[in-house]
Amino acid sequence: MALECKKISSFLFEYDTPRMVLVHNKKVGLTFRLIQLVVLTYIIGWVFLYEKGYQSKDGIINSVSVKLKGIAVTNISGMGPYLWDVADYVFPPQGDSSFVVMTNFIITRGQKQETCPGHPESEKCNNDSTCKKGEFLRRGQGIMTGKCVDFSHTQKTCEIFGWCPVEIDDNIPNPPLLLEAGKFTLFIKNSITFPKFGVSRRNLVEQISERYLKKCVYHKDKDPLCPVFKLGYMVEESGQNFSQVAFKGGIVGITINWDCDFDWPLKYCVPVYKFHRLYSENSNVSPGYNFRYARYYRENGRDMRILYKVFGIRFDILVNGKAGKFDIIPTMTTIGSGIGIFGVVSVFCLSIFYCPSLISFEDPSKSALWRAFEPGKHEPGVL
Amino acid sequence: MALECKKISSFLFEYDTPRMVLVHNKKVGLTFRLIQLVVLTYIIGWVFLYEKGYQSKDGIINSVSVKLKGIAVTNISGMGPYLWDVADYVFPPQGDSSFVVMTNFIITRGQKQETCPGHPESEKCNNDSTCKKGEFLRRGQGIMTGKCVDFSHTQKTCEIFGWCPVEIDDNIPNPPLLLEAGKFTLFIKNSITFPKFGVSRRNLVEQISERYLKKCVYHKDKDPLCPVFKLGYMVEESGQNFSQVAFKGGIVGITINWDCDFDWPLKYCVPVYKFHRLYSENSNVSPGYNFRYARYYRENGRDMRILYKVFGIRFDILVNGKAGKFDIIPTMTTIGSGIGIFGVVSVFCLSIFYCPSLISFEDPSKSALWRAFEPGKHEPGVL
Amino acid sequence: MALECKKISSFLFEYDTPRMVLVHNKKVGLTFRLIQLVVLTYIIGWVFLYEKGYQSKDGIINSVSVKLKGIAVTNISGMGPYLWDVADYVFPPQGDSSFVVMTNFIITRGQKQETCPGHPESEKCNNDSTCKKGEFLRRGQGIMTGKCVDFSHTQKTCEIFGWCPVEIDDNIPNPPLLLEAGKFTLFIKNSITFPKFGVSRRNLVEQISERYLKKCVYHKDKDPLCPVFKLGYMVEESGQNFSQVAFKGGIVGITINWDCDFDWPLKYCVPVYKFHRLYSENSNVSPGYNFRYARYYRENGRDMRILYKVFGIRFDILVNGKAGKFDIIPTMTTIGSGIGIFGVVSVFCLSIFYCPSLISFEDPSKSALWRAFEPGKHEPGVL
Repeated sequence: MALECKKISSFLFEYDTPRMVLVHNKKVGLTFRLIQLVVLTYIIGWVFLYEKGYQSKDGIINSVSVKLKGIAVTNISGMGPYLWDVADYVFPPQGDSSFVVMTNFIITRGQKQETCPGHPESEKCNNDSTCKKGEFLRRGQGIMTGKCVDFSHTQKTCEIFGWCPVEIDDNIPNPPLLLEAGKFTLFIKNSITFPKFGVSRRNLVEQISERYLKKCVYHKDKDPLCPVFKLGYMVEESGQNFSQVAFKGGIVGITINWDCDFDWPLKYCVPVYKFHRLYSENSNVSPGYNFRYARYYRENGRDMRILYKVFGIRFDILVNGKAGKFDIIPTMTTIGSGIGIFGVVSVFCLSIFYCPSLISFEDPSKSALWRAFEPGKHEPGVL
Repeated sequence: MALECKKISSFLFEYDTPRMVLVHNKKVGLTFRLIQLVVLTYIIGWVFLYEKGYQSKDGIINSVSVKLKGIAVTNISGMGPYLWDVADYVFPPQGDSSFVVMTNFIITRGQKQETCPGHPESEKCNNDSTCKKGEFLRRGQGIMTGKCVDFSHTQKTCEIFGWCPVEIDDNIPNPPLLLEAGKFTLFIKNSITFPKFGVSRRNLVEQISERYLKKCVYHKDKDPLCPVFKLGYMVEESGQNFSQVAFKGGIVGITINWDCDFDWPLKYCVPVYKFHRLYSENSNVSPGYNFRYARYYRENGRDMRILYKVFGIRFDILVNGKAGKFDIIPTMTTIGSGIGIFGVVSVFCLSIFYCPSLISFEDPSKSALWRAFEPGKHEPGVL
Repeated sequence: MALECKKISSFLFEYDTPRMVLVHNKKVGLTFRLIQLVVLTYIIGWVFLYEKGYQSKDGIINSVSVKLKGIAVTNISGMGPYLWDVADYVFPPQGDSSFVVMTNFIITRGQKQETCPGHPESEKCNNDSTCKKGEFLRRGQGIMTGKCVDFSHTQKTCEIFGWCPVEIDDNIPNPPLLLEAGKFTLFIKNSITFPKFGVSRRNLVEQISERYLKKCVYHKDKDPLCPVFKLGYMVEESGQNFSQVAFKGGIVGITINWDCDFDWPLKYCVPVYKFHRLYSENSNVSPGYNFRYARYYRENGRDMRILYKVFGIRFDILVNGKAGKFDIIPTMTTIGSGIGIFGVVSVFCLSIFYCPSLISFEDPSKSALWRAFEPGKHEPGVL
């Protein structure tokens, strides 16, 4: 019993520690202190101050809604003057974070289900045997009826059943019909929430008053916080030429970055907008961005549609955000691991400098590496 | 040759170790054991048990589809009684994870391309010189023709060419026309896959039978697993007032969290639903959520449209998921790094307690810090 | 003054180091070297080579646009032969990364706002008292007028006000009307940008020429880089049966993985496509994927609509990407932390092997664990 007690008390009150040697050596001592300094600088400067190791971090939940403004007029033969407003040129209409603004189009009016000559490029023929009844071609717009008919005075094409007349999309209008789109404005509303900190922010920050909002337009230097963007400006900023993109379509990425430090007043937590070209135009394989879209109606009891081949600019809005705030737990953890690293490095340095005997045998003076530290001139002194 | 052999054998079979000193000192010994205890608790309690360091982790691939149910009747003058069902009030129709439910609207019927007086707020004028031909205003709905015409008996506005008649959106209907939307139900189908573990789950978990599904409605305490949600309940849970949100529109975030531990039976892997206000209504700058949407038709050979200014509630569904499962590799790694940390701390503690001689010169007893540990009373004994 | 100087110089030029003991013991020495070898292998093999610790990493910004091709013909009674092209069967039309291809549908033509008998399944009745005026049922399609009327010769249902006639969706067409959809092709255009490295890539990589693109079809072994996919192939690859999915609808996930190493030529940075079943069909609770969609038109001055209950396959495209490139900073950090770990392990091993005296009291030979290392046979020699 007394022995047990003695054991426990000796376990609790005694501890082992290595016997230390004090080495007097200018080169080694200086190197040792220098390494300690580097490590200390790294821990305090990088981990603690630069990476803000004293903060707890949080990601975001976000929501983006957009609103476009602007009108454009076209005057196409057979259609007359026509005004395009936001309900006409934005897809989808509900203001999603990814949307397409129509900048050019090929319109095919009055399509209905019947038979007609096919497209002269994909379905040309000389006689009926070329046109296999019931089959269709990869780029064809309908099922072949098996007849070869006159498309025009000079060309014969396979007759098809489908939406007739067929779309002729060989000539893309140039200049683009809605070149005015460059002057349209995009209003981005972005709300973010840091759930851990319970903080919500909008991109309509304190600096933006209702009056300012009504007339401001984003400029990366002059008005970096204004959430109203000219489409043309965004496309140019992404490194593309607007009229070129408007012609065949393209994609522009808009990133909104929130990098917030809640140890500072909330008003410094503001978004940063950037524009990216998400599509390399220098390639010739399948350039541009287009899709087909139909408006259906009924006329004289028949289903009809107007087919649009829409060339447009797609805008993809991506929101990134992170925030930090002083918190005692990460502070302690960072200090702890800092001490840990410092300890490891110190201990490891000690063993490296004392290593000659560890890694060289019989004759340490033969080790070129360690001779640099003049191991022979060590003057060990027992503490 | 024999020398080489001897070198290798001495490299393999010998090793260095520091000479240890056994220190008998109650305060220091106790502190040392205490620190070891804290570190051990941290490693076992936090890293191993709380953060489940013995598990390999995996993220998810997920898919969300939604389905709304519910009908509402409006009775607007000039439109008569009108029933709205899911194909009428949801945008987009295909059940995406982000969708808008219309709760209020301003309808402008029978628009066609012609000239008419502009909007009295943005385009008022006194004489023709105010209206610059061919130009348009930022909030204008068409191109000005250069004439100043009577909008009503009392007001004159610039004549415009565009979709006529112009939309008059000054008075938003209050109470909202589709206030019934609060009773609509949302059915969320969410499938997740943990590719690494090869496990798939749906939010229709084992506890949900077909019969239960047909009549259940989500309640955070009573029916936390039912995937059928009342819109009104969700809006209120997000901290907003439904009729207020329905009036001018708003945004609600729905998060589905899957936090699964596959060391337990699969049935405990269930989703947790939460609702967030993603839009701060207290701000006066650009509140609400609305967009314009048109339905096109042809009448008497002319393109016509019905324009809707839709006020609605946007629901954004976000799915987060992570799972863990026992795995030998992370277990080994965690134990290894735990031993490592323990080792570092022990070694570092040793050197700290033995430090007086390391950081104080000539007269260690002058160091206040170390006097606390009574360095003078160390009784070193060679092991 | 001279004392200060001396202190500083002694701080700078002196250092402490533990006194080391050289232990000659075959088992312990060998174990010690073995552990060092394991650690070194781990650091060099795993951290440095396998996890590429010498590279700085980057995530991606990406953009996906899709284009479908293919036509199908249906011949439903009352509708006649009807050709479906891409503008008819894809939702939404603009080529988003998540889209639905219609494979089956129930059509309800000529709906207008009036009164008619309700759906026989949800609104059957015997007399007027069953039908509560002004109320509606959870699955009902309109507001009940309070009357019980003949739906057919044999059935009576509550009369409703709403879009009439009501949709009868009891019989889903089987085989699916657009079974041809399996032959439709999907063309995916995916552009990615690594902002940190300033590198942009498309899935139309160097190996894909314009000519190849025009006739290739993806096959996981033969044409793994061709960005043109057959819908049927993708569904089968995801582990589902196409005609079954086409019947009631379903969801397929497409993942595009970019795992790039920019220390190698850029052309090796290619996408990997995979297909996932995001929906478990084995469950009977609410299987399939469908939504309602309406096309509006006006006839004789009345608002009319054609209601489609669309059964379709939803494709969700997810892009993951990461890239690494040699960078001096992570290389240094990895080497540094490798040295650190090596140091810790070495030091820790030393103390473990020397531990008998540390953790056993009075009689170290009683400790079974340490006897394995034959502590009694240590032959310590002072360095």
